[in-house]
Parts: sequence; structure tokens; C-alpha cells
Amino acid sequence: MTSRPIELSPETAETLRRVSTATLTSQLLRRGLRSTFIRGLVPTRPDLRLVGRAFTLRYVPAREDLAFQVDFDNEANVQRLAVESVGPGDVLVIDARGELGAASLGDILATRIARRGAAGVVTDGCLRDSPGFAAIDLPVYYRAPHASLSSIAHHPVDLNVPIGCGGVLVLPGDVLVGDAEGVLVIPAHLAEEVARGAAEQELVEEFAIERVREGASILGLYPLGEERRAEYEAWLIDRERLSRPG
Amino acid sequence: MTSRPIELSPETAETLRRVSTATLTSQLLRRGLRSTFIRGLVPTRPDLRLVGRAFTLRYVPAREDLAFQVDFDNEANVQRLAVESVGPGDVLVIDARGELGAASLGDILATRIARRGAAGVVTDGCLRDSPGFAAIDLPVYYRAPHASLSSIAHHPVDLNVPIGCGGVLVLPGDVLVGDAEGVLVIPAHLAEEVARGAAEQELVEEFAIERVREGASILGLYPLGEERRAEYEAWLIDRERLSRPG
Amino acid sequence: MTSRPIELSPETAETLRRVSTATLTSQLLRRGLRSTFIRGLVPTRPDLRLVGRAFTLRYVPAREDLAFQVDFDNEANVQRLAVESVGPGDVLVIDARGELGAASLGDILATRIARRGAAGVVTDGCLRDSPGFAAIDLPVYYRAPHASLSSIAHHPVDLNVPIGCGGVLVLPGDVLVGDAEGVLVIPAHLAEEVARGAAEQELVEEFAIERVREGASILGLYPLGEERRAEYEAWLIDRERLSRPG
Amino acid sequence: MTSRPIELSPETAETLRRVSTATLTSQLLRRGLRSTFIRGLVPTRPDLRLVGRAFTLRYVPAREDLAFQVDFDNEANVQRLAVESVGPGDVLVIDARGELGAASLGDILATRIARRGAAGVVTDGCLRDSPGFAAIDLPVYYRAPHASLSSIAHHPVDLNVPIGCGGVLVLPGDVLVGDAEGVLVIPAHLAEEVARGAAEQELVEEFAIERVREGASILGLYPLGEERRAEYEAWLIDRERLSRPG
Amino acid sequence: MTSRPIELSPETAETLRRVSTATLTSQLLRRGLRSTFIRGLVPTRPDLRLVGRAFTLRYVPAREDLAFQVDFDNEANVQRLAVESVGPGDVLVIDARGELGAASLGDILATRIARRGAAGVVTDGCLRDSPGFAAIDLPVYYRAPHASLSSIAHHPVDLNVPIGCGGVLVLPGDVLVGDAEGVLVIPAHLAEEVARGAAEQELVEEFAIERVREGASILGLYPLGEERRAEYEAWLIDRERLSRPG
Amino acid sequence: MTSRPIELSPETAETLRRVSTATLTSQLLRRGLRSTFIRGLVPTRPDLRLVGRAFTLRYVPAREDLAFQVDFDNEANVQRLAVESVGPGDVLVIDARGELGAASLGDILATRIARRGAAGVVTDGCLRDSPGFAAIDLPVYYRAPHASLSSIAHHPVDLNVPIGCGGVLVLPGDVLVGDAEGVLVIPAHLAEEVARGAAEQELVEEFAIERVREGASILGLYPLGEERRAEYEAWLIDRERLSRPG
Repeated sequence: MTSRPIELSPETAETLRRVSTATLTSQLLRRGLRSTFIRGLVPTRPDLRLVGRAFTLRYVPAREDLAFQVDFDNEANVQRLAVESVGPGDVLVIDARGELGAASLGDILATRIARRGAAGVVTDGCLRDSPGFAAIDLPVYYRAPHASLSSIAHHPVDLNVPIGCGGVLVLPGDVLVGDAEGVLVIPAHLAEEVARGAAEQELVEEFAIERVREGASILGLYPLGEERRAEYEAWLIDRERLSRPG
Repeated sequence: MTSRPIELSPETAETLRRVSTATLTSQLLRRGLRSTFIRGLVPTRPDLRLVGRAFTLRYVPAREDLAFQVDFDNEANVQRLAVESVGPGDVLVIDARGELGAASLGDILATRIARRGAAGVVTDGCLRDSPGFAAIDLPVYYRAPHASLSSIAHHPVDLNVPIGCGGVLVLPGDVLVGDAEGVLVIPAHLAEEVARGAAEQELVEEFAIERVREGASILGLYPLGEERRAEYEAWLIDRERLSRPG
Repeated sequence: MTSRPIELSPETAETLRRVSTATLTSQLLRRGLRSTFIRGLVPTRPDLRLVGRAFTLRYVPAREDLAFQVDFDNEANVQRLAVESVGPGDVLVIDARGELGAASLGDILATRIARRGAAGVVTDGCLRDSPGFAAIDLPVYYRAPHASLSSIAHHPVDLNVPIGCGGVLVLPGDVLVGDAEGVLVIPAHLAEEVARGAAEQELVEEFAIERVREGASILGLYPLGEERRAEYEAWLIDRERLSRPG
Repeated sequence: MTSRPIELSPETAETLRRVSTATLTSQLLRRGLRSTFIRGLVPTRPDLRLVGRAFTLRYVPAREDLAFQVDFDNEANVQRLAVESVGPGDVLVIDARGELGAASLGDILATRIARRGAAGVVTDGCLRDSPGFAAIDLPVYYRAPHASLSSIAHHPVDLNVPIGCGGVLVLPGDVLVGDAEGVLVIPAHLAEEVARGAAEQELVEEFAIERVREGASILGLYPLGEERRAEYEAWLIDRERLSRPG
Repeated sequence: MTSRPIELSPETAETLRRVSTATLTSQLLRRGLRSTFIRGLVPTRPDLRLVGRAFTLRYVPAREDLAFQVDFDNEANVQRLAVESVGPGDVLVIDARGELGAASLGDILATRIARRGAAGVVTDGCLRDSPGFAAIDLPVYYRAPHASLSSIAHHPVDLNVPIGCGGVLVLPGDVLVGDAEGVLVIPAHLAEEVARGAAEQELVEEFAIERVREGASILGLYPLGEERRAEYEAWLIDRERLSRPG
Repeated sequence: MTSRPIELSPETAETLRRVSTATLTSQLLRRGLRSTFIRGLVPTRPDLRLVGRAFTLRYVPAREDLAFQVDFDNEANVQRLAVESVGPGDVLVIDARGELGAASLGDILATRIARRGAAGVVTDGCLRDSPGFAAIDLPVYYRAPHASLSSIAHHPVDLNVPIGCGGVLVLPGDVLVGDAEGVLVIPAHLAEEVARGAAEQELVEEFAIERVREGASILGLYPLGEERRAEYEAWLIDRERLSRPG
């Protein structure tokens, strides 16, 4: 449904899976992007990493003359169409306007989304059946639990349009990355260079934190000063040697 | 740009211009609609009444790789397209996500909107140049003043799609009615009967408040009880006689 | 309905009508009471002063199996009973839980309350028909306008029980005082001494502000130091002489 | 202290203990009740289920001339009376006005409540000694931890009156049900039919989620379509056979 | 008390007094500064313009062992020192942490500030005796009225240090500009160029709004396109001729 | 950098480490201090206790002409100076204005702080790399995770000045105590007596909760009445005998 001119290579995806969202915000800030981390969300599965492409779903407020049913019509309901449309690598990103008075998704639909091979779900609204999400093999980020059906507050209207989620812009095809801290959005055209930059930055930070643990001051170390660059380069060579197989 | 199968007759529009938003919420509640009044908005011109059809404009959060200019491109910018598209009887309704950190519209664009014959503007965001709106002959409803350009917070993306505005659903073509209390949304298919019901209700309330001013108890009067219905009917006949010319 | 062992003398009421709520908070703070001013309320009639005794009305959240009518039953509805029970000198104080999603009172009931001789209304909720309150000769304090009927959010349950209003305790019989700044609560047993203290304090402040307008420093003046007390006493004598009729 | 004309049968209580709060909100919505789940609360013991009848306790804001002691008077203090009044099957539900600036209950009182056989505690305020609640064998739902005594913010005034708790109406005798997602309120007169409906609904959902885990689409399954009803009935018979002993 | 290496020339001050805060935010955004407008403040005197240099005053939360008096010590209290230190052209800017539960300043002190020749007051807290400010010849911006003394919430600690006010950085010596829309902060080193740029921008906007009032489209006009620049230049020459005295 | 005339003796520190923050708020309230618990913070390490002296760090809002770098200058940046200045027993307390839109500290700096022997960190802002804090042997209290660098929202300006943290005053040298419930502030001059009082209070509460667990009513027990004091004294003697080594 979306044009996705920019591919996310397996190598970039793999790199994004290893670096932290904190490192990625720094790389995005270096490129002028300040607001990419979706604040206020918690992961249902902090043990899983999220990497995938945005498949967006837009909700508007419900109104009694339109959409107040308990039994959904799967053929017409846009939420249901979304669930049966996401595919491998997709992250279903829901604009639920931060609504705390009803759910935006429940466990049966999430199970179906996982079964379709999607990479994850991000909503700035609530989950119902939230305790059940711990058993679903899918990284899901949300604001709070709420037992009530989405239909009392939400009317789903659009798939794959630009949306806001938790105050952050999400375009269809944007790259979503999540860890235990939360989830952020990378414009597709920046994903590769940001991933590469993040991988390099994490090496420098790994070097720094090792030295700090040994008792070093952060001066000249974090950020890395010229006077310690040679030491860092040597550490890097050692580290690579050690990580090479036998 | 929108299909508007349901017309708003001049008679209905005229009736809506005379009844209060408070009366209209009662009529909508009688038909099962609870959430139609957009809370938290203030009018720039409490002396003007707003009646018109929704022409919607949707904003999403801005991002630096997309839309952070000071000088707008009038041929591509969706906000500017909206301004040059609204026509007589249209109410430009903006989904600005309740954002208080930047404006969603300024006085030059509002002047242009008024000049194009639009019926009004409703935004759940801020206005800039807000003191200037008192001099523009257009009813505008907004949340707060903010001097900063919309582009630091908003990226306009869609015209005439369903939106949320201040927590209330607005469909293109819905009827917007505003008075000094605020503004509400009437689904187009209900406008005529709601207007008629409101006009009748206001007569009953006018009768009631006159009696209350004279010292009557509200018992049997508000709501009107059967025991006073004949008195009301008589008052109604008198009132109509008095209001007839010559 | 309440026992009001402590009378509010006409002299105390008269004094309270002349002093500001700002001065009264100082007097209450001197007696250890910190939280007496109800924040966040605006007056419908900033030109009127409010002085009276609390007649409280408590709302709880509405529920569909209980209280969701459009037409109220005046014989059973506790809000309507309140309206027909308040008398001269009473201030109807409504605990509306700060609710911004529906009204807590409208203009017909307020007209009736005024007609019954009540001293005013204070609600931490919304008013409907709010533009009409400017024409009602009654000081009313409220949070915001909202066109919707109270019944969609509120179910009235109790008269003359202790309530919270805007975060401040109100006991039946407490003295409410309002000016253009807002409204505060004085425990009945403190009203007389607080009024007296406030009147004295305002004289000192009148003396101070006159001197400040003439160019004096606040040092030794506000608060009044011993070195200027004689000057103050002289000013006081002069002032009294001038205000005495010929 | 309350009249409880409607009994909660052991069978209904047992059913409510097995179904989720999410399922119960659907059943209540089918009967027209939208707002029954108390949002924003967390359980101290997500491993325990809560089922019981509301015994309500109402707090109002504290004031220094009334209730600012450190040492409570157990014979007069309404909070203490509540603690020594709750009995088997009661859920103490506290209207703490959502206050986040002081506790509404601590661990010694909660231990006493558990010892008296109560079914649980629900407060829209804070707990103090909150880490200790993990060791108390009682399901307790609350908003946040706060170390300070309740008396700096709360003055307890009433037992077993209608209250609001987290924006939801609670009448004395209402049925409270809680799971790891949160807690909701069922009007006593609806408890039996809602429980029955929920048990049936959960079977259908169990059938659906099993199919979804096997790879089925939600189309025709959730909600269950006529075309799969026979399959469901067969599954149900099988399931019952398997769950029968011997 | 502050070093103010950068002077604010009378010409720049005069220009700033004539341009709107809306125009100034555009000029600041062109120079990369996004957050300069202090949102959420209202003027006591929308008829006055504010232009001056920041003289900052920092409050921290009050604590009972420190600062809970009713009678202030003018020789030691930092708020009082501030009042007696501000001079001509100073704007007293108060960091009141957005506190809505007590005042941050009252009318006697504001009268003294005006008498000392200060240019204005900006606080992100409340005013007490707020109705009285209409009679003080001083532009004051604030969040809300509150009758209670500042000492119940605030302890003043510092003069002329960097502060946050309403979420915006204010350095001592920064230029504050206010109109009926609100107030913003200009770094001193940018004041002159921003003022000049704003004056030019307002001419272009005056030209644009005149054309729009006559019925012109905003296309090519706002922003001004090359195709209409000659027309603008001609208008400018005419306008200057007309404004020259006879 | 601070004068710390009042020492925190090892005995007092040891006592504070054993008593709960709930007990300490009661002791502070007895001495007139109501607002000492910093609400809304969560511990990174609920298994660790925090006791130490405040070393304060003050942030103001960032502005693009000042402090918007990605690479910090460790020699000039006040945050970095703070990190390299804290010593054994210090608690770094950060006034981050409750900001939820960026971090106030990350894991490398926190590792350095731990390595310097500091007693802990308290911030009313966010942490980045928050999942990593579970592995740092340092009690840290914070509001929420946020992946973004502090520089997009914060400009650090001062060390060891009075600050507000989560609405509570913190003076340099104040004693901070934290447990799994949260963290509070004790004025240094009260630390010893408050610790002593808390230890005594906890014995009484231990006696009470043991009795309550056995089935006793709270009447006469909590608070402890005169009629049970002898029983308590006997229990105390027994308890001390049992706790004495062989």
C-alpha cells in the first residue's frame, strides 16, 4: 500500500538490533533531528529488540452515530484490515492520540499480528488483556493498560498515512527501533548511515565505560579526546582479535 | 474536494444561528451523541455566531528533515492549499493535536480565509498575531495565543479527512455551530432535526426563565410538566402574536 | 438542614465585603491555615462581591444505570432539591471534582438560585449557558464553560456534607468570600476575628501603597516598621476625620 | 451499615474470579455501561484476583483547624473506623480524589484489613510503606507510592456513601473485580448476568486465540461468524469432555 | 549586579516597541532559536508594550524551617532586595517554577517596581491582588491569579542568575519584549539585528495584508515572490512619502 | 564548595539506613515539615538504600546560541564538573525541572559517579541508557527513561546552590534518604533527632504489626495507647535480649 523506495538492508537491520536507542538519538541529533524518541511508552517484552518498518494506523475519536459496536465487522473495520495487512518486517504504529480512557489493541489481534510475521507494535494508547502480552512473542510498546474495548474511544480511519505517535512524526516506511528504554523513529533515508554511526559510537563508549569502571576520569575519555585516540585504536584492534573465532 | 450529499438548507442554518450550543448538546444527547462540544476553546469574536460545514485540515508533528522552513511554499504546503481552497460556508477545522508550543494559524491567512467567504475557523491549537483577530470579521475558535510559527511544531498533511479536534470527531461536511460559549459538531444527517428540536426547546426554556424571573419554582416548569403545558401554549400564542409585524 | 451554631453577624459580613481575598489569606495564614483559596476559578460577575455561608452539593461520576436522563425529575434529583433549598445568605458550593467534560449548572437554575435570595454559587466544574450569567445578578465562580448537560458526567448525591471544592475543604456553614481575584473559605469560628484582622491590615496596606506611590521605599513600610508607626497612626487619625460626615 | 439487597452468590463470585476485567468491560458495554474500569491503578499483588463488595470510604481535603494530627484518634477517626468495620468479602474503596501528594493508607492498616477477612482495597490515592504490601496477602490497587501520612492531605468523613474512585462511580455494595490489568466496578444487580456472559465470551475467545495461534485469520473468527459456529460447538464439547474428571 | 557588555540602543528599543512578538519569533527562528516565546502568560495591561532587560529573580520551594513568615524581613528577603534593586529599563523576570498554588508577587511590590522606573515584570507564577494591577502603569505578564502569599510556596534565593521562566531560558541582560499576545526573550547579542529584520518583515507583511484585504490570493504574496517585489518596492516608496511630514 | 557545618555522624547515617522513608516523614511532620518526600520518582535499584548529603546541580532550559552540542566540553560543562566533583557520601541531586522530553544523565556518567564513591543520584528528570542502571552499584532515583541527550533540553549552570527537586527544596548538605518507596530530604540540623525518633517509632510499629498479624485490633495499639505501654515495654526488653549475641 505504501511506496517504499528505500530498502532496509539486512546488515543495517542487524546493526540496529545491536545498538541502543540512546546511541541512535545522538546520531540523529548530529543530523539535526531532535524529536525522534517516543516518550512515555513501556515495552511488554523488554527482553526483545524491535526493528522494522512503520505500517501506520490512524484512529480518530469515536462517535455514537458511527462506530460504537461491541462486535466488529472484520471486512470494514480499518483496525481489523490493518491486522490482516501487516506482513514480515512491519511495525504496526497506531496514532491513538495518547488516549488513556480505552484500549487501542488487545491480545487476540496482537497474537494474529505476531503470527503474520510482523516485527512489532507501537501505540501511544492503551492495551487491553495487557497481562497476556508477556506470552506473545512480539515486542509491543504502549502507554498503559486499560480493560475497555477500543470502540468506546477510537474510530480507525486510515492505513499508511503520516501520523503522530506520542508527539513524534511517523511516516509509512520509517524505521522503528526499540529496546528496553523505549522506541524511536529513523527516517528511512537516514537508516543506513545512522546505524553505521551508532555502531562506531558504541565502540567508543564501550572503551570509555571500561576505563571508567577501572577508575578513569571522564576527562579526555567521554567524549574521546585526541590524547587517548591511539589508546582507543589499540583497544579496538585487541577487541577485534578477541572476538574473531579461533 | 469532499462529497457532501447532505445539504444544509438556509432555513436550518438560520435556525442554528439563533439557538445556543447548550441547547444543541441537549438535542444531540437525546439522539445518543454525548461528545460533540469541543472543550477548551475560546472565541476571538464572541459577538459573532458560527454556522458552517467542516473543511478539515490535518497536522502531524514536524520533523527537521521535512518541514522546518520559515518561508512556506504556497504551491506545495498543505496549510496554504487549505487557505486557498475554503469557500463560502466552509469552516476550516484544524487538528493541531492540542499543541500549545506553537501557532497553528496567523492573521494574514485568517484574513484571506475571511476574504474567501468562509464561515469560520476552529483549531484545537494556538493562534499567532492573536490580538489582530479582533479586527477580522470571522468567528475563530482556538486554545491559546502563541507567537511562534506553526512550522516548528506542525507539518500539514491532509485536507478533508476525518479528524479529531479537541477530542471530538469532525468529518468533512459536518455542521459546526459556535456561540460565545464555544463550538460543537453536528453530524450532517442530524442537522435539520436537531435544529428544529433546539428551536422548540428554546421556546420552552424562554417560557421557563421568564417564570423563574417572576419568582416561580422550577418544579413543574423546568422540565415543563403536564400541569403547566396549557399555560405554556397560551404564552406561545401570545408571543407569536406580539412578534408578528403590524 | 445544617446546624449552624456560629452566626455570621451583619457587621462581619459587611467587613468581609470590603476587604480583599488576598488580605484574608494572610489573616488565615497567621492562624495556621494555608489552603483556603480555591484556585483556578473565574467570576461571572467580577463587579460583584460574594459573602455568604456554604450550602454544599456533592456530585459523583454518572453511570448509565442510574442517572443519564435529559429530563430531570425535580422531585428526586438532588441538584434540583439543592436549587429549591438554598435561601438568603447561602452560597451553593458544588463539588464537581474539577470535571471539564460537562457542565455542573446552567442559567435557568442559577436564575432561580438568585431569585431565592442566595448569596452566590461556587463550583469547581463548568457552567453551561455561560454567556447568560453576565445578566444574572449573582456572583458565580466556575472553572470553564461547557455546553453539555451535567447528567453526562455528574450524579448529584448529597446536600450539606463536607466536600472538597477545587482542592479546598468546604464544610456546610463555612464562610465564602469572593472578589475579582477569586474565592476563599473561612471556617465559621474564625470569621469574625479574621474579618477584624483583615480590616486593620488593609488600613496599613493603604497607608503603605500611598507612600509607595509617592516614591517611598518598601523598607520599614511593608511590613510596617516601628520607626514609621507614629506616622501611620497620624495618617489614620487624619483619614478617619476626613471620612466622617460633615 | 449498608443495605445490600442483592446477594453475590458463591457461584457468581467464583466465575468473576476466573474471567478477565477486559472481558467484563465488554459485557458491561453490551448493557450500556461505558465507564466501569478504574484507570491508572496498579496492583500490589498482580498474582492475586480481587472479587468483593464495595465498602466505601470518603476523604475530603484536610484543613489545619480540623485534622492535622500525627497521632490518630482511633475512636473518632473515620479512616480507623473503616478499618475496624470491613468484614469478609468487603473491598474497602477509598475516594482519595486522585491525590498524589500524600498517602491514603499504610501497611499496618492494610494488615489489619487483611486479618479481618476483607477481600481487598482499592484507592485512587497513594500507599505508604508500599514496598511492604508485597508481603500482605491482600489484593490492593493504588495510584503511586508516597511516604507521607494521609493526614497532611486527607480528612476522612464518610462510610458507605456513593463515591467516585478514579473517575468511576462506586456505590456501596457494588461488585469490584480486579486482575493484573486493573480493577472494575459492576453494579450489583448486573453481577450475575455479566459473570455468565463473560464466562461464555471467554470460551469463544479461547477458541479464537487457539485458532489464531495455529495461523487462522481473524476473519469469521473474532468475532465468531456463523460459518464457524459448528466448529466452535464441536470444540466446546471436546473441551468439556477433556476437563471432566475420570 | 550583572555585567551587561551589550547595550540596548534607544533605536533598537524603539523598533522592538513597534514590532509584534509574532514577527520577532520568525526572526529568531531564522537564526536557529526555536524556543523564545514564554507560553501560558497573560498581560495585566494588554494596552502597554514591554521592552527591557532581564533582571532575574529565582525562587525555590519553601520549607517550614526556612521561610514561612507572614511578615517579610525586607533587609534579608531576596524578593524584597530584588524589588529595591531594579532600575530604569529593567524587567524583573521571576522563575516561580510555574507554581499555581500561591502568588509570586503582589500589588504593593509591583507599585514600588513601577515607581523605580522598571520596564515591567514577567513571572511564570501567580499574582495576588491581581485586580489591582490594571491600575498600575507597568506591563506585567503572569500565569493566573492567586490570593495567597508567596511564602507558602516560594523561597527567593538568587538575583541575576540564569533561570527558566515558563520553559524558556532567561539570562540576566537578555532583552524581553511583550505585546498583547505574550512575551519573548531575545539574547542581547541578537537584539539589534533581530529588531532590524523584524521591522523589514513587518513592512512586507503590511503590504501583504493590504493586498489580501483587497482580495488577493496569498500565492506570490505571503511569502513575497519575486514577481511582486517591484510592486512592493513601489508601495514602500509611496508609503514613506505619505508618512513624511508635510 | 559548600560549607557543611553540621556533620552526619556514622551512627545517624547507619540509623537512617535502617528506617523507612515513611517513618521519617512522620518524624519530620512532628517537627512541622510537611513537604519532604520527592514524589514521582522511581529507584533504579530498589534493593539498595540511599543515605548521603546533597551535592546539588542546577539545570536551566537549553537555548541554541548556548549549549546545543553533541560533544560536551568536559572542562567547561557544569554537568561534567559536577560528575568529577562529587565525593564519598555525596548525593548528586539534579534540578531538571521535571522535564520529560530529554535525559538528565546517562550510564557512563553514573558509572563515574559510583566509582568516585558517591552515595547516589536523585533527579526529577529522565535517565538515558536506563536499562544499564540495574548493573551500576548506585542507588539512583528518577522520573522516567528517555533516550535523548540532556543537551537538547537542559543547560547546566550551578553547583551547590539551593534547588527544587520534584517540588521539594534541597539545600546543599541536606541529608537524602531513599528506600524502595522513594526518596526524601532531611534538613541537616534535624538529621540526628529525626533518625533517633524514627528508630523509636519503628520499634513501636514493629510491636503493633506483630500484634495485628496475630489478630489484634488497631484500637489502643496504633497509635500505642497507655493501656498497652507496659506490654510494649516488656516486648522491647525481650526483643533486645533476643537480638543480643550469645
